[in-house]
Parts: sequence; structure tokens; C-alpha cells
Amino acid sequence: MTATRHHPTEAPERRHDRPAPVGDRPAPIDGHEASVILERARELVDPVLRAAVESLPGSMRRIALYHFGWEQADGTPAAGHAGKAIRPALVLAAAAALGGPEARTAAVRAAAAVELVHNFSLLHDDVMDRDTTRRHRPTAWTVFGDTDAILAGDTLQALALRLLAEDPHPASRAAAARLADCVVELCAGQHTDVALEKQSPGEVTLDEALGMAEAKTGALLGCACALGALYAGASEDDVEALDAFGREAGLAFQLIDDVIGIWGDPARTGKPAGADLAARKKSLPVVAALASDTPAAARLADLYAAPCAQEDLDRTALAVEQAGGRDWAQVQAADRMARALGHLARAVPDPEAAGGLLALAEYVTRRSG
Amino acid sequence: MTATRHHPTEAPERRHDRPAPVGDRPAPIDGHEASVILERARELVDPVLRAAVESLPGSMRRIALYHFGWEQADGTPAAGHAGKAIRPALVLAAAAALGGPEARTAAVRAAAAVELVHNFSLLHDDVMDRDTTRRHRPTAWTVFGDTDAILAGDTLQALALRLLAEDPHPASRAAAARLADCVVELCAGQHTDVALEKQSPGEVTLDEALGMAEAKTGALLGCACALGALYAGASEDDVEALDAFGREAGLAFQLIDDVIGIWGDPARTGKPAGADLAARKKSLPVVAALASDTPAAARLADLYAAPCAQEDLDRTALAVEQAGGRDWAQVQAADRMARALGHLARAVPDPEAAGGLLALAEYVTRRSG
Repeated sequence: MTATRHHPTEAPERRHDRPAPVGDRPAPIDGHEASVILERARELVDPVLRAAVESLPGSMRRIALYHFGWEQADGTPAAGHAGKAIRPALVLAAAAALGGPEARTAAVRAAAAVELVHNFSLLHDDVMDRDTTRRHRPTAWTVFGDTDAILAGDTLQALALRLLAEDPHPASRAAAARLADCVVELCAGQHTDVALEKQSPGEVTLDEALGMAEAKTGALLGCACALGALYAGASEDDVEALDAFGREAGLAFQLIDDVIGIWGDPARTGKPAGADLAARKKSLPVVAALASDTPAAARLADLYAAPCAQEDLDRTALAVEQAGGRDWAQVQAADRMARALGHLARAVPDPEAAGGLLALAEYVTRRSG
Repeated sequence: MTATRHHPTEAPERRHDRPAPVGDRPAPIDGHEASVILERARELVDPVLRAAVESLPGSMRRIALYHFGWEQADGTPAAGHAGKAIRPALVLAAAAALGGPEARTAAVRAAAAVELVHNFSLLHDDVMDRDTTRRHRPTAWTVFGDTDAILAGDTLQALALRLLAEDPHPASRAAAARLADCVVELCAGQHTDVALEKQSPGEVTLDEALGMAEAKTGALLGCACALGALYAGASEDDVEALDAFGREAGLAFQLIDDVIGIWGDPARTGKPAGADLAARKKSLPVVAALASDTPAAARLADLYAAPCAQEDLDRTALAVEQAGGRDWAQVQAADRMARALGHLARAVPDPEAAGGLLALAEYVTRRSG
């Protein structure tokens, strides 16, 4: 669990008062460009991921192929938009940062394993949260039913650990143990998320909300970076520093994701505008706003006490903003990113070597969906 | 998938026209006594299992401790009845049969991993099947809700693979890959089970029902035996023979379990009498009865076409019996056991060495709940 800091005392290295405009991409850092890094990661990892999914029995394969965007629900091929591949890209970038191109190549199976665990958790979370849209398409449970979505998620977890069990690399054993621990943390985070949603808004503290975000999002981004470090043969200290880097970057990611969930463009996010507010979700900006002791916080609490009417959406978003929830999330994100960069500098002092990880970290706090 | 044989052409070595009376235990074979073997397996495996569960974060630990029968729902200690430990006992017995006492000791973590996967699948299956009773207690989802039961199941799968990832034994890598494959097969089997339950009774073939039983029950018993063989350093052929032994014994187990599900004593089984019939489950004796082309089959089809009234239970059970469903299941179970013993004799020709596995195989086809 991380400490909550409303008013960071250190000046963050980069502060973005607002997310970058839609369609904007981060500026290249030391010759690295996040979109290129993500694209190259996808090219390396997709064949391994796809082969793993293709190895499933028909009933499970069908659901997984749909979930990854490779097939329509009726089994016809789809254009395929299996997400941004941030997690596998982090595995590969961390391996490259600490072990060069050879380590990067060696870590491809681990990168695919991390992406499988991510998709296992998405399949299960969507069932539990009753989320109906994912990557611009109906979620798997809305198409195949709860049972099949749960079972398909189960098989993706198994495929992830299988990829590592099959991997002769000396780091694969430690990687598997770490990834299994991460699954446990993801589950505990999802439990907390669901539990917090059942509480009345005023009862949820920022510490609880941030702890939940660390478990649900930070843990897997940290694990991705740690696995890359393991495959580079890094020292235990460096593996932990990379984990901390990924965790803090993951929290920044989640903070920005929550901002996008309220003020983002549905065409970019693939989710309806204000969906989090409409569902009365206690996302981080909302919890911060409610804790702000302002007139807007009281207004927000009143709004959150009743189900959301469509015409209330704008007022609700305005109340979160006026209570400081949006600014707090932006500042927190920048602060988390500063901490992340501190951890990274410890393990990878050479900015050239750290370039890929820096570009990805920049990307996740600037992205617009 | 196994071929269906209504009328086995080989005389089974041991044929039991009825399950042994309640409370009966199999006769010792070559000095081995199943109940002692199970008890010793539990003593060896429970501490590893318990330590794994204790390592979970509080929210998940609580549910797992309840599910294993070690705690009440309110967190107070419980007497603990975590099932019969047949699967871990098979791992240990297979290791001993092919590698002696040292292999047996080495395989304890693998035995715990198999038991964790079994309990992962129980937690999830109970949610999907809406089963309310397990081991004489309310199922986890009825106490903690669907979400927490699913998440707890997810963590048990992760703990299983973690135990193997941590195990320095040279067989642990192959064991992890095999166990992950087994998880996939279990999920595909559960998918088929749920899909078959949605079909009208006449549509389900015996091949489908037996294939489902092999995936849901045979796969994990086969995997348990194969893991034991791996930890004994056995040849690939012997590992496969042990897998086949466990699969066939598992099918025998399921056939007897289905018989017990209809005609068993609730005090022993922990399930209400005739629960499978009341839920209109297409268990193996029912599918065999419906396929029998007898007047009783037609009567059974009529009964199964409507929801079950309590006063119909006895008539339904009688129709299954008169259509030959009970006898068919008994003969099939004996036939499967004969095949299992054939596979075992191939890998472990010395009856003394095979004694533990023989006793366990006998036990599962004689047990009364």
C-alpha cells in the first residue's frame, strides 16, 4: 500500500495540468517513440500470444479469440485490436534496459505471459463489474455468458503459467513465482474494488482507493518490469527497483485512466462518456473530490447518494472538478511519475538505456485512450 | 475423449453390482489400506497446503480457509474436513510406485499443487452450477458471494502454479506445464457440462457425457498420477501410462459418484438425496438410461421434460434404474477400472510396488461418499 499525498512536497519533474489533446503522442525521448515501441512489442509478442490461444480447445479458444479482438463472435476473422500492449512492451523494454537486445529477445514469452494474465483479469473483472464494453466491443460475458467468460479467463491464467513453465530460460522459474504472486495481488485488489463500491461514498478513504489501484493496476505493471529485469539477469535490488518503477507508473496510469473515464472522448476510450460517474464508481478523482471538504464535495455527495440520471452527468463531472478531484489526480499522477523515474534512475542510470521505459512511462500518463 | 461401450466385451476383473454398504472400506490389498494411505497423504500435504493458503492476503485467505473447512464463515476455527485427499494421495502413491519413498517425499509440493487446482475448480464450478452444498457445508459463493468465490478460486490456481515454480526439483517444470494443461482441460469439461445441461435430455449422447466426465474428473486424476511419475524420474511412456491409469480410474470414480448422487445416503455424501435428479442433471446413469430404448427410458424422458416435484424423485430414480442406467454405470465403472489396472501393470508390473495405487483405485470405485 502506498501513502496518500494530497499535496506533494517535491515538485514533480513533469506536470501536466490536463491530459494531452486527443490524438497527441508523447514527444520522442532520446530517440525512442512510444508508439513505435508498442508496435514492435506487439509484433514480437502477438505470434506467441496467438499460438498460446490457438492451443486451447475449441470452446475456450473461441471466447479468447473474440476477447482479444481476433475473431467476431460468430468466428469470422476480425481486424484485431488486442489492446495497447503496454505490459508486454514494459517487459521487453525492462529486459533491454538492463540486458540489451539479447535479453529483450529472451523475454518474449514472459511478455506474452504478462499479457495473458492481464486479459485473464479483464475477463473476470468485466463479469464481476457487469461492464458491457471493452476495446469498443461488447464484453465477452455479454456475448458468451458469465460461465464461459469465467472459464476462458481461467484458461488464460493457465496459459500464462504454462508459457513460463515451458521456457528453458534460467529466469523463468522466478518469473513464474512472481507472476503467480501478482495474480493473487490482482485478485485481492479486485475484491477491494468490489467491496469499496458497496460502501457509501463518504466511507471510502483515499488510502483505500490508492491501495486498491496499486493492487489492481500497479502490481501487474510492476511485475512486467520486474520480469524484464529477471530475464536480463539483473540483481535482486534492480529487480525490485524495476518493480517499484512499474508500480508507480501504474498508479500514474490509473489516475489518468480515471480522469479519462470522466472527461475522456468515448470515440477514443471505447467507453461511453462519464460511464464511471453514471455507475457511481468511486474512482480516484471522485474519492479525492469527496474528501476535499469543499461545497462542491457536498454537492457531489448528494449526487452520488442517488442513481444517476443522464442529465446529471455534466453536473456530476463539474462537481468533481470544482472539488479539485481532477487537479488532484493530475498532480498525483505527475508525482507518481516522478517517483517512478527515481526508481528507474537507481537501476538504470544511463538515460540512453532507460529510454524505452521512459518513453512508455511518459506515454501512459499522456495517453488519451 | 474415450469411446463409449455399453456392453464391455472384456470381463472386468472386479465387478460390483452395487456400491459397498455405507461405512464399508475396501479390503487391504498387499498390505495397503486406502484409508491409511489417504490419512498419511493428508498429514504430509496439509501443512504445505495450509502454508500456501495462509500466504494469501486476508480477504482471499478467509474464503479459502472456509472452503477448505479450516475456518467457519466468521473466522473461528473449524474441525476441518478438506475432502478425502484422493488426488494428492495419487500423486504420492504414483511417485512411490515408480521411485520409492524418496520420490514420494519429493512429490509433496506437487501433491499440494494438484489439490489446490482441484479446489480452484470446485470453487468456480459451484458458482456456475449454483450448487449450495459442498462437504456438508454451504458453498463459498452462498456465504461470500459470487465475486469473492471466483476470486478465491483464481488465487488457488495461482498458488498451485506458484508451489511448482518454487520447487527446485528437476521435474517441477514439466509438472507445472502438465498441471496448466490440466486446468485448460478442466475448464473445457466444465464448459461442456454447462452446455449439455442446457440441451434437452434426448440430445445428449453417451459419448458427449463420457467425454465431459473424462475432462472434468479423469483429467485431474490422470494428471495427479502423471505428476507422481514425473517426480519419480519415470520414462515418458510410464508417465503416459500413469496418466491413462488415473484417467480411467477417474471415469470409474465419476460413474460411481453419479450413482451415489442418485442413490447415495445424504448423511454420507453431504448432498441432499436425489439432488442430481431434482436438478434434472444429465449425469451418466441418466444419459445411459435415456439412451436405452426401453419403456422406462420414455417414462424418464417425460419426467425430465418438466421441473421435478419432490414426490417425483423416487419415480425418477426408479425409471433410471429400470432403464438400466444404474447397472450400466456399475458395469462401465468396473470396465474402466479393468482398463486402469491394465495401464498400471504396464508401468508398474510389480504388484507390491503398485499396491498403493491399486488400493486407491479400489477405494474410489467402492466408496460410498
